[in-house]
Amino acid sequence: MTEKPVFYAYLMSEKITFTPIGIIHSPFTELKGMPIQPAGEKSAPGTVEIYSEYAPGLKDLDGFSHIYLIFYLHQSRFSSLTVAPFLDDHPHGVFATRAPNRPNAIGLSLVRLNRVEDNILHIENLDILDGSPLLDIKPYVASFEESTDLRVGWLEGNLDKIRKKTSDGRFTE
Amino acid sequence: MTEKPVFYAYLMSEKITFTPIGIIHSPFTELKGMPIQPAGEKSAPGTVEIYSEYAPGLKDLDGFSHIYLIFYLHQSRFSSLTVAPFLDDHPHGVFATRAPNRPNAIGLSLVRLNRVEDNILHIENLDILDGSPLLDIKPYVASFEESTDLRVGWLEGNLDKIRKKTSDGRFTE
Repeated sequence: MTEKPVFYAYLMSEKITFTPIGIIHSPFTELKGMPIQPAGEKSAPGTVEIYSEYAPGLKDLDGFSHIYLIFYLHQSRFSSLTVAPFLDDHPHGVFATRAPNRPNAIGLSLVRLNRVEDNILHIENLDILDGSPLLDIKPYVASFEESTDLRVGWLEGNLDKIRKKTSDGRFTE
Repeated sequence: MTEKPVFYAYLMSEKITFTPIGIIHSPFTELKGMPIQPAGEKSAPGTVEIYSEYAPGLKDLDGFSHIYLIFYLHQSRFSSLTVAPFLDDHPHGVFATRAPNRPNAIGLSLVRLNRVEDNILHIENLDILDGSPLLDIKPYVASFEESTDLRVGWLEGNLDKIRKKTSDGRFTE
């Protein structure tokens, strides 16, 4: 453990507040039955409604085929730092999983952007609950994020399950 | 524009509050001179200190070679919904860029995880300011995020600049 400089101490109790910039409309109204990752349900379509005051920030977004959505997991409740995720029944640290019940309920999804109509984004590859408040959008650029020598820890050998499996609702209880 | 159901209206003014789970230690103490994306500075090393109360959530994270860090852009100040980003002098919507001055100052970086020692993550490929409060960690799994037919909008033709260019400080003013 490294020594913690004194001037960092205030951060431990700092609260950071965000305001939604829009809302995600999806076919999934409950966690049970939802695809567990974007790759699990290639075709699920949906829309993102950007509140009109933020619409000018969408300029040129339509040039990107894929975007990250950063959103609030509004139906999750944090309970434990170790979880047994959908793909595996062994407990892992929550930060080694994409489980929704996290200390900060922040969701991250890479989705396909089909088109932009005014303040509405038409997207595919959804694994997001209907009504999730949107916090930010980032364009996806593979060159920024190329990865070599990839290791995927406990998920090795479980990846083939993704396309078949949907949420069993274990994070809703 | 789609019709907005009445029960969504409250979300527009909802505040969402998070608490840092750790802090990012990097060699970059100011935005000027910092690599503008992870790919711009492959070798920049740093550490992420997870506050000890959250350390149990790191179990099995060491099996992953790459992780996403979601953090607070603590030195950014939102000013405009259109920005002229580092790679290009034309204004684009802020959501079509990775510029730090965003309505919600949320940063997203994909970094290499070299090793985990207790509550300290040793990472590479940093483009994060020293002292940035960490909000969440997600494991990176390419199969979750495979992309075909990638289009990168205004960045097309600008990607070769990434490795050469560093921040000119335009977002610090």
